[in-house]
Amino acid sequence: MLAVEAAGKLLLIDCGLMFPEAHMLGIDLVIPDISVLRERRRDILAILLTHGHEDHIGALPYLLEDLGSPPVYATRLTLGLLRSKLAEHDLDKTADLREVELRKPIALGPFSAEFYRAAHSIVDGAGLILQTPAGQIVHTGDFKLDPTPVDGQPTDLERLAACGDEGTLLLLADSTNVEHEGHTLSERTVGEAFNALLPNCSGKVVVATFSSNIHRIQQVFDAAAAVGRKVLVNGRSMVANIAIARQLGYLHITDDALLDLHGYRAARPEQILLLTTGSQGEPRSALSRMAAADHKQLQIETGDTVILSSKFIPGNEKAISNLINQLYRRGAQVFYETTSEVHVSGHASRDELQTLHSLVKPRYFVPVHGEYRHLVHHAALAREMGTPEDNIFILGNGEPLTLSADGARREERVETGRVFIDGRGVGDLGAPELRDRSHLAHHGVVNVILALNQASGEIIYGPEIFSRGFVPEEDSEAYLAEAAQKVREMLAEHSLDAVSDWEEIRVEVRRTLRRFFNKTIDRRPLILPFILEL
Amino acid sequence: MLAVEAAGKLLLIDCGLMFPEAHMLGIDLVIPDISVLRERRRDILAILLTHGHEDHIGALPYLLEDLGSPPVYATRLTLGLLRSKLAEHDLDKTADLREVELRKPIALGPFSAEFYRAAHSIVDGAGLILQTPAGQIVHTGDFKLDPTPVDGQPTDLERLAACGDEGTLLLLADSTNVEHEGHTLSERTVGEAFNALLPNCSGKVVVATFSSNIHRIQQVFDAAAAVGRKVLVNGRSMVANIAIARQLGYLHITDDALLDLHGYRAARPEQILLLTTGSQGEPRSALSRMAAADHKQLQIETGDTVILSSKFIPGNEKAISNLINQLYRRGAQVFYETTSEVHVSGHASRDELQTLHSLVKPRYFVPVHGEYRHLVHHAALAREMGTPEDNIFILGNGEPLTLSADGARREERVETGRVFIDGRGVGDLGAPELRDRSHLAHHGVVNVILALNQASGEIIYGPEIFSRGFVPEEDSEAYLAEAAQKVREMLAEHSLDAVSDWEEIRVEVRRTLRRFFNKTIDRRPLILPFILEL
Repeated sequence: MLAVEAAGKLLLIDCGLMFPEAHMLGIDLVIPDISVLRERRRDILAILLTHGHEDHIGALPYLLEDLGSPPVYATRLTLGLLRSKLAEHDLDKTADLREVELRKPIALGPFSAEFYRAAHSIVDGAGLILQTPAGQIVHTGDFKLDPTPVDGQPTDLERLAACGDEGTLLLLADSTNVEHEGHTLSERTVGEAFNALLPNCSGKVVVATFSSNIHRIQQVFDAAAAVGRKVLVNGRSMVANIAIARQLGYLHITDDALLDLHGYRAARPEQILLLTTGSQGEPRSALSRMAAADHKQLQIETGDTVILSSKFIPGNEKAISNLINQLYRRGAQVFYETTSEVHVSGHASRDELQTLHSLVKPRYFVPVHGEYRHLVHHAALAREMGTPEDNIFILGNGEPLTLSADGARREERVETGRVFIDGRGVGDLGAPELRDRSHLAHHGVVNVILALNQASGEIIYGPEIFSRGFVPEEDSEAYLAEAAQKVREMLAEHSLDAVSDWEEIRVEVRRTLRRFFNKTIDRRPLILPFILEL
Repeated sequence: MLAVEAAGKLLLIDCGLMFPEAHMLGIDLVIPDISVLRERRRDILAILLTHGHEDHIGALPYLLEDLGSPPVYATRLTLGLLRSKLAEHDLDKTADLREVELRKPIALGPFSAEFYRAAHSIVDGAGLILQTPAGQIVHTGDFKLDPTPVDGQPTDLERLAACGDEGTLLLLADSTNVEHEGHTLSERTVGEAFNALLPNCSGKVVVATFSSNIHRIQQVFDAAAAVGRKVLVNGRSMVANIAIARQLGYLHITDDALLDLHGYRAARPEQILLLTTGSQGEPRSALSRMAAADHKQLQIETGDTVILSSKFIPGNEKAISNLINQLYRRGAQVFYETTSEVHVSGHASRDELQTLHSLVKPRYFVPVHGEYRHLVHHAALAREMGTPEDNIFILGNGEPLTLSADGARREERVETGRVFIDGRGVGDLGAPELRDRSHLAHHGVVNVILALNQASGEIIYGPEIFSRGFVPEEDSEAYLAEAAQKVREMLAEHSLDAVSDWEEIRVEVRRTLRRFFNKTIDRRPLILPFILEL
């Protein structure tokens, strides 16, 4: 999410979410912390969305109202995908969604915003050209320079060249693939790979891909039709996105090309192509359950072919690898990124980035979209392409940059960060709860119950100890009885009637058990003593 | 770990450990389940170790005594590394370790075992040639056909060719890199990359690599010496392995080439090379702490160069990527597998595997060492190289194969599996405890304490509810009081004096809270009700 400010007014560009990293235990989603924008909501003129991927639109349902529900501008498919997300939060009726035409500037207070075509791994992607009082800003969104895109709409190089001629103050550009030499392959090559593979498949064919990649989906349908297979669509988001894309005219599929579950059961394997999600080895996805022979309707059988038409997203490699192994165990032949040309990236490689820089010739450059190291490498590429080192800024989250007639100046960091979503809770979980979860995850929990007579300090009940995720149930009774004995001994040493501070007892109970567990089995569970005074 | 049996006697080949996968919460290590071997321990004639990597020797300290402490045969460095592991378990004095000479067969009951040189990413690796009553078995261990290894000792192709001439019954071969076309690069190319990089480095140089890769370490020292840098060695296993390798004559380093911490402080950056572990982004490693500016003695400064001379091990990609980003934030230049030739694999690629098969010409083939999909691809390669399909067997853990004059026959699966090590506990944790840990990890824990009068069923105390990792502490009091009220209401509805089954109350408490948490915040903590009868 990026904010552009001029004359006290704000434009926001994209509003994405992050999927949780491994250490964010139990977290469903991560969205940006918009504290600094909340107090400025009256100044927000519009939200501009470059394309419909989760990391660019996914946080909007959570934040749109907090941002004062400004109008949201985007291309038709982007809005279509957003609308279905907003509907899940009952916001689709109230949101002010405005479809844009490419190359048609929109006046927005001190700004004007123009969308231009950007080819990417989703249909109807765009880049942005903003006119501001300080000068022109070009924001590429996510893009590649695919010269032969499936929909015949390549990135608008002509418009980018004009930006260079007009003079561009600032370029912000996608850095994801800056470590990749040469050109990113055209999406069309994936269709060619499908067309080469499918005629040689004898059993059922399963293609797993990202549900947002409408071009890829079109190519799957085309390749299936060419070999006389009909397509069963599986996966909630796949079904939803195909419906949206068909309705909006971005996907050309006849009803006849589709199979329902009934037709699937009646068809022979060589008449079937199953198009599904689950390419990242998500444990509950249909594909993972099929691979584990744990799906009621859908089975993988010897001779079937599975094509993972997707990237191994960092962090998912192990899950994907397990999925592939299980598919092989079922007797399937599996094609995937490492062994076949069944996936291409949606991001520009080095040669394409050089072309971009040479066309736009910006005065200032800010690399965006990528890991920090990608930003560093993209900054180096910009230097090689002639942007002076002092005019290149790597900005972290919350690090503003001011451009004016006096040049560029970094401003003091503003408050930003990540907000965790767990269930219906937005932002209520923080570091302490995640630390507890990590502790529980690695060592389990031990509860100690002890009831004492409030007046005499005499033990009425306990210490009773019970645990989860700590020691196996069959051994726990004897072992925890031994632990309870240690606590009893400790309590006997303290003259309890003299102790008025129950917190002290709690600390001692914890210390006694910690020492005992550490010495006997070298484990460190979360110990929760509970003392009742009756 | 592999067992070879003939005439009622057993040879064991390797005895490795696995590092825990992400879902094995709190598990330190995973070792093989040897139940079926325990009762046969008197029949075990020897353990043969191909090389000194953890996944080939690491479980021995845990299992050697259980296996009846048979003699362990290996090359000198493999035994040196093993000895230091055994010492940590006080087993080094009693273990019967026997150094082997290459190409010198050892008589072992009905077998004879011969070690031959195998080039790999550790010094002193070997493959095995076993003579058995049924015929000759070749086991490659882990290998590549590096024609220019750093120690001048390539894989013994001559001996393998002789195996082909003599007639080999069964080949078992490394499958790790079967998806990789062509040849694996020589280890020497990494030295060349170091020699090309180092003269251009101005600040401090940090090289992170695997502590077992003695050739790599030698090349780091050589490259450092060539540009006048001295080496500070960091990391427990790096220090230990360098000491062992120097002592046994596998590493040629003069004392003069080394820096201690004192010398490090006195030296200028361009005189320093820091050689360390931590290439996998392990959070507590010195390198990760340096990257986070959280190390007392060692710092990364602007202009420093960090070389990750290592593979991105599957499952660690995200941690490594975070490490690289942090190093860039510190101002370092970072070189790593994706961008530079600073690492090569130790495993043979397809062309090399084809050479192996064409030399050994086995009657039967069993692919080993690799994910299941690698075994499938290696089986396909063996077919292409002329081994009949019926003579190729992909074996899972515990799946025996019998070879005799009558041909090959799969036997019934024997009991095997994984044994988890957590702290001092070996094998006591199983699926139920890991399920609890996973539940705790994702949702936290809620404890409910309730004291009832045994006779009347009257509530004496509680319900008192406390939680960890569930809701943030600042909100928990009010929220959990509300939850307690729900439990109180439920209890009021039940006429407690009529209830004799306390388990029923426990179930009802759990159900009431589960419903409340689910409805209000959509979370599913582990709920542990505890009812005292007083």
